[in-house]
Amino acid sequence: MDDMYGNLMSSLAKPSEQRIVLLVMDGVGDCDNAGKGTALQQAKTPNMDALSKVSGLGLHIPVAPAVTPGSGPGHLGLFGYDPIVFQVGRGVLSALGIEFALTPRDVAARLNFCTLDKAGKVSDRRAGRISDDENKRVLAKVRAKLKAPAGVEVFFETESEHRAVLVLRGEGLDDHIGETDPQAVGVEPLSPTRAPYDTSKTARMVGDIVNQVRQILSDESKANMILARGFAKAPNWPSFAERWKLNPAAVAGYPMYRGVARLLGMPIAATPTTAADVCAEAAKAMKNHTFVFAHFKYTDKTGEDGDLPGKIRRIEEMDAALPKLLEAKPDVLLITGDHSTPPSLKAHSWHPVPFLMHAPHLRGGDGPRFNEVACRSGQFGTILARELIPMALAHAGKLEKFGA
Amino acid sequence: MDDMYGNLMSSLAKPSEQRIVLLVMDGVGDCDNAGKGTALQQAKTPNMDALSKVSGLGLHIPVAPAVTPGSGPGHLGLFGYDPIVFQVGRGVLSALGIEFALTPRDVAARLNFCTLDKAGKVSDRRAGRISDDENKRVLAKVRAKLKAPAGVEVFFETESEHRAVLVLRGEGLDDHIGETDPQAVGVEPLSPTRAPYDTSKTARMVGDIVNQVRQILSDESKANMILARGFAKAPNWPSFAERWKLNPAAVAGYPMYRGVARLLGMPIAATPTTAADVCAEAAKAMKNHTFVFAHFKYTDKTGEDGDLPGKIRRIEEMDAALPKLLEAKPDVLLITGDHSTPPSLKAHSWHPVPFLMHAPHLRGGDGPRFNEVACRSGQFGTILARELIPMALAHAGKLEKFGA
Repeated sequence: MDDMYGNLMSSLAKPSEQRIVLLVMDGVGDCDNAGKGTALQQAKTPNMDALSKVSGLGLHIPVAPAVTPGSGPGHLGLFGYDPIVFQVGRGVLSALGIEFALTPRDVAARLNFCTLDKAGKVSDRRAGRISDDENKRVLAKVRAKLKAPAGVEVFFETESEHRAVLVLRGEGLDDHIGETDPQAVGVEPLSPTRAPYDTSKTARMVGDIVNQVRQILSDESKANMILARGFAKAPNWPSFAERWKLNPAAVAGYPMYRGVARLLGMPIAATPTTAADVCAEAAKAMKNHTFVFAHFKYTDKTGEDGDLPGKIRRIEEMDAALPKLLEAKPDVLLITGDHSTPPSLKAHSWHPVPFLMHAPHLRGGDGPRFNEVACRSGQFGTILARELIPMALAHAGKLEKFGA
Repeated sequence: MDDMYGNLMSSLAKPSEQRIVLLVMDGVGDCDNAGKGTALQQAKTPNMDALSKVSGLGLHIPVAPAVTPGSGPGHLGLFGYDPIVFQVGRGVLSALGIEFALTPRDVAARLNFCTLDKAGKVSDRRAGRISDDENKRVLAKVRAKLKAPAGVEVFFETESEHRAVLVLRGEGLDDHIGETDPQAVGVEPLSPTRAPYDTSKTARMVGDIVNQVRQILSDESKANMILARGFAKAPNWPSFAERWKLNPAAVAGYPMYRGVARLLGMPIAATPTTAADVCAEAAKAMKNHTFVFAHFKYTDKTGEDGDLPGKIRRIEEMDAALPKLLEAKPDVLLITGDHSTPPSLKAHSWHPVPFLMHAPHLRGGDGPRFNEVACRSGQFGTILARELIPMALAHAGKLEKFGA
């Protein structure tokens, strides 16, 4: 697996004052909702419709055909990092989700609090879904009493309910560590140092930590043990600024998306959540940044809830907010999603995602609307998500010629 | 970096008497010219229109999405050599541009004559843009006096104005040589043997040559020194004839395109420049060759000049000339460009390039015209340039089945 295309495009990127805005309506793509049309088709979007008539349209494939992406891979693709080459472990995604500032010396894992019975077997893999407060209380106790293995720092961070994040920081750590979650009740937690993990120094440290936690929590009735999975080293990737010669900023109200942005060294300019605020803050961030990533969560949230009318309303909110962003006159404005989230599926999906690019040097305006069907016959065709930033750079005049 | 697709297709190619003609209207693709349409859309092209109705249409991406190709990579793609795998250094491209017959033992560099002041600092990186004649006079002096380093031949060739080409020929030469052009005035030329180039024997030879040239030209007022960049070894690639089992010929009036053809071992059948002559010579070359590459330069030249009416006129010239080529009845006729050159950009661009393939075994005729918009919905879809020759071979019956 190499990154030939990304490396080539990165080598051609050159800085300039042109502004690129990437507006992500999370999970915006949809299915046809029993023939009534997609959320974008059903929504009343006069501003996007008008824009589509003077813009190029297309569909993007977030990761690869038929792949349903998580939020991490979905956004990495949009940022021009092939999600198959740039893979993030689950532990790292959990750390990003709570905006834990990972360094390249870190190994992260997802934790579940669980309940062990008297025989030491897992009786509840989620410790009765304890409250966030309970989670915090128990973790405070662990933090106070745990003796970190020599040469490492250990971080325990609350996520929500029974979920937490473990991070080890030190020199020369590896992530060749056995998952301790047996994924079943009535059995003991697995050992992190079982074969083939018995050669890992870091696995032995995790074994020590898990044993200490078990001692420290032995007087708890619910959360008396932890289960760990998804051990992963923090990646040491080229920053977005280096890779694309852009001065980027993120405008995102939800921790996960700020986390992905931070992983690529993108500073956070603002944390709005409503469509109006996302557009207003993106317009502001354009003053000092040549690239603005603006994230709107609710199109995904309504999709995950199976709430089609809600999804339509959220799209209409964004449409109404759009003029504020257009006033700031980005040189290239890319409107799209990181994946599809059809309300009929109540989940992310693999469907290609519509995108609109308002930019110089087009081949006419496509339109007449911005939705899955109009985008199918747009001038950009169906491309990979990782090709979107290079295409935006091309239209913004930010790429050198290849060869003389 | 591999050439899996190219190797596969090459292994399937088989010889036959069928004739393929590749007619390149250099830089033919365009943007929408403020809503008035592309040059192809605006041109009156009754012959191409008629042909498009009995041909397949499509768009090709010369190198990769969003990449603006130079002439070298643009043509390598058309010839079925992935331009990312088959990369040519700038020195080699310059040598091709003057049709210098490179061998695999050669290292080439681009030269600029420059002016040094009395302190030895660059005062003019282009030596006052001396005339071609002045360039030739000065190079004759260098040739007469230079003592070639032991074991190598040294060639100095005029390109135009202040530009020239340096070629070293010998056994075991490398191209790990520092560029001597400081890309600024008021500073001294750089040493070709500075670290990390101090390990290269060839770099030391170049250092010796540069010092000699400085002595030889010390009495010149303008061109009293050379600056060298883009040191590159001549590639040793499979010839077009071997790769595709074709007996090829090039019909091209401009040195750069003959140079690229020669790099692939393609002999030059004729050097016409007008549309009428290009078509007439291509028709003639078909008698003795199973593949004819015919090149028309002026669609690119007018694009680079920002001359939209000129570009439209040049397309119309080619349209008028086309019947002469059609009379010769090529089995497969491919009409396209090597990249787009929108007059609005006055430069090459990244936009996909329309192509027309008149061939047996189509799925109907596409049409109704040959232009960027008609090609977007053509039967070939949007493909990579390097897939065009394999597709032409397929339609010409020149490919074996894959697998039993």
